[in-house]
Amino acid sequence: MRRALELAARGLGTTSPNPVVGCVVLDAHGEQAGEGWHRRAGGPHAEIHALREAGDRARGGTALVTLEPCNHTGRTGPCAQALLDAGISRVVYAVADPDPQAEGGAATLRGAGVETVQGLLAAEAEQVNAAWLTSVRRGRPHVTWKYAATLDGRTAAADGTSRWITSAESRADVHRLRAEADAVLVGAGTARADDPHLAARLPAPAPDAPAPVQPLRIVLDSDATAVRPGARVLDEAAPTLVAVAEDADAGHLEGHPRAELLRLPRTDGGLDLTALLAALHARSVRSVLLEGGARLAGAFVAAGAVDRVVGYLAPALLGAGPQVLSGGGISTIADALRLDITDARRIGPDLRITAAPATPLTKEH
Amino acid sequence: MRRALELAARGLGTTSPNPVVGCVVLDAHGEQAGEGWHRRAGGPHAEIHALREAGDRARGGTALVTLEPCNHTGRTGPCAQALLDAGISRVVYAVADPDPQAEGGAATLRGAGVETVQGLLAAEAEQVNAAWLTSVRRGRPHVTWKYAATLDGRTAAADGTSRWITSAESRADVHRLRAEADAVLVGAGTARADDPHLAARLPAPAPDAPAPVQPLRIVLDSDATAVRPGARVLDEAAPTLVAVAEDADAGHLEGHPRAELLRLPRTDGGLDLTALLAALHARSVRSVLLEGGARLAGAFVAAGAVDRVVGYLAPALLGAGPQVLSGGGISTIADALRLDITDARRIGPDLRITAAPATPLTKEH
Ligand SMILES: NC(=O)c1ccc[n+]([C@@H]2O[C@H](COP(=O)([O-])OP(=O)(O)OC[C@H]3O[C@@H](n4cnc5c(N)ncnc54)[C@H](OP(=O)(O)O)[C@@H]3O)[C@@H](O)[C@H]2O)c1
Ligand SMILES: NC(=O)c1ccc[n+]([C@@H]2O[C@H](COP(=O)([O-])OP(=O)(O)OC[C@H]3O[C@@H](n4cnc5c(N)ncnc54)[C@H](OP(=O)(O)O)[C@@H]3O)[C@@H](O)[C@H]2O)c1
Repeated sequence: MRRALELAARGLGTTSPNPVVGCVVLDAHGEQAGEGWHRRAGGPHAEIHALREAGDRARGGTALVTLEPCNHTGRTGPCAQALLDAGISRVVYAVADPDPQAEGGAATLRGAGVETVQGLLAAEAEQVNAAWLTSVRRGRPHVTWKYAATLDGRTAAADGTSRWITSAESRADVHRLRAEADAVLVGAGTARADDPHLAARLPAPAPDAPAPVQPLRIVLDSDATAVRPGARVLDEAAPTLVAVAEDADAGHLEGHPRAELLRLPRTDGGLDLTALLAALHARSVRSVLLEGGARLAGAFVAAGAVDRVVGYLAPALLGAGPQVLSGGGISTIADALRLDITDARRIGPDLRITAAPATPLTKEH
Repeated sequence: MRRALELAARGLGTTSPNPVVGCVVLDAHGEQAGEGWHRRAGGPHAEIHALREAGDRARGGTALVTLEPCNHTGRTGPCAQALLDAGISRVVYAVADPDPQAEGGAATLRGAGVETVQGLLAAEAEQVNAAWLTSVRRGRPHVTWKYAATLDGRTAAADGTSRWITSAESRADVHRLRAEADAVLVGAGTARADDPHLAARLPAPAPDAPAPVQPLRIVLDSDATAVRPGARVLDEAAPTLVAVAEDADAGHLEGHPRAELLRLPRTDGGLDLTALLAALHARSVRSVLLEGGARLAGAFVAAGAVDRVVGYLAPALLGAGPQVLSGGGISTIADALRLDITDARRIGPDLRITAAPATPLTKEH
């Protein structure tokens, strides 16, 4: 199963809106006979790749899959049937498929006399598929909030200077996060202050896999005043979506060859984030990397729409300057957003902390 | 030498104002013949303990010591001479002794035909003796700034509530830091807000070692208005020093059975920290644990008098509330106090980060 998880992870960045899936097929003697992973939406599923490689050796064997085999006839035919046709006698999968369209693969297999086992390395398999599982369960994209700050939680000095708080290694790591996400999001404040580019330096494609795709760049710009023609985010490196209020005067962006306009209702703090996430979900965006700034991050915290936090902490102290998170609607310690640290490691001289809400979020979108 | 370092560390909290030292004696065949560590000021040095255990087996052998053997006849006689008398033929030490009174131990040994080697595990030996080495080199105590904060750098929520940001495990770890320090220091703001006790829960003594001693509790209270009679810091758990301005009206503390008064000059932000550190040095305080708050920590950063930072990061977000560090005199990113992370580890659900200034501090005291 560990091998299957490694294979699944190769699909990060190229399978969306599908899950990443890895599969290892063992023959009747328990020897590995084939392996595969899902490479791109529309392409064969992991099980099909692995069964092809195993050929006749699959008969009487075991399939180890990171996600419950699908049961529906989509673009590629149901995997449960393919496993039966190949004569597999045991299927071990890590995580059940919560997709209502796909559910029932395990039931079909059991009905045909195949032994099925669920739960092996389930936590790891949940993690590799966090984006897709969140989007199926909540009907909205999985949101990772990324920030870079000093040990004392500042994102810039008092005079606004911030180049570079974190190291080149951390900045390269952020490009990896971007490449794995379907979309990258910033607020108007960041667009105004930094004129960010937001495109990812894409990694070399995995062997035998399609090239990773650039994430959609998104700016929340209620009054259509932050993204001006000539903004770096409007170049041809990646597609760009500018979200503006329904009543915004966005003449300069209408019909712009590089900017797509998304009209959203206004709420107190700006644009309606629930409507934003629903619109992104509808266009198959499964994962969003929220790159700030502090106010937009606060609004996502207040909306209960942060699924993962990735913080890059630079070993430096400033003692003054803007905070990494502001707003969020928390006024007393009992209401603090409690997280679990899932990973902490050195990235060059910096420390990268990954955390996720300790209790399932209550506000659903 | 690793064993010698372990032995040295046992003395943390009981040898001040002396260094911690560990020693392992090998016989002529390289077999361990004796070991020892310095347990308390006035007691035998590490080498003496180890030589006693080795007896005749020391002849022709090697002594591994974490610090250069002393050469002066203090309360216990010079160790260099003791090593010669025992017939040791090789001395390996990690760090040279910067104390002008003690210097020359290695020279004496070499002069008598003993082979001497310096530098083995020097970084580790520097670290275990950081407090003592700093105090000898700078003529002031070694200062560790400890803080507890959320991932976004807040020490309390917007309404001031902060119990408990960090976990019971982290709070227990702070008691260990206190027990290793000669003094624990807070500002008037913290004294007013929290009425802190500041005594350490002392660990059980190391085998064959004296009981650890309570650190001196210190409050910086310029106008003698923060520490009132009945303050928890004035109980009998540990000695207490209240630093006040030369012109402060401190009648209620004069002659107080539990509070010692220290008069200091005023400077811009409060009491003169250089004068404070000099006074502490004069009374053999080698290490200070600075427990906050944000303004006092800022003043120490501004004075270039933070030698180590220990941050306990709780996996929580607040988005509002007081900052962990304020002031510090840094207004632009190029002036940020750059640190090196020397350790990062999980303490219960929290993350403890230890860091030290990346370049030697320039402002000496
Ligand atoms: N270190 C880091 O990790 C990092 C990352 C990113 C940015 N930054 C820094 O952060 C600073 C900008 O942060 P910021 O807090 O001022 O601005 P921001 O969070 O980037 O943008 C906030 C703005 O976004 C718009 N917005 C639209 N809908 C919103 C909603 N529902 N909730 C909140 N905002 C919404 C609003 O402006 P309109 O009303 O005009 O739409 C709002 O003022 C920059 O200096 C940048 O360099 C640091
Ligand atoms: N989370 C943590 O790690 C942690 C730790 C400690 C405290 N805290 C919190 O921090 C808050 C208090 O912080 P704070 O910043 O208000 O106060 P503070 O730093 O504890 O004390 C500052 C005060 O100390 C006195 N002082 C004397 N000499 C000084 C000097 N040279 N530089 C600076 N101050 C000097 C001044 O008051 P006078 O003029 O009256 O002398 C000054 O206002 C409390 O709410 C406490 O709970 C948090």
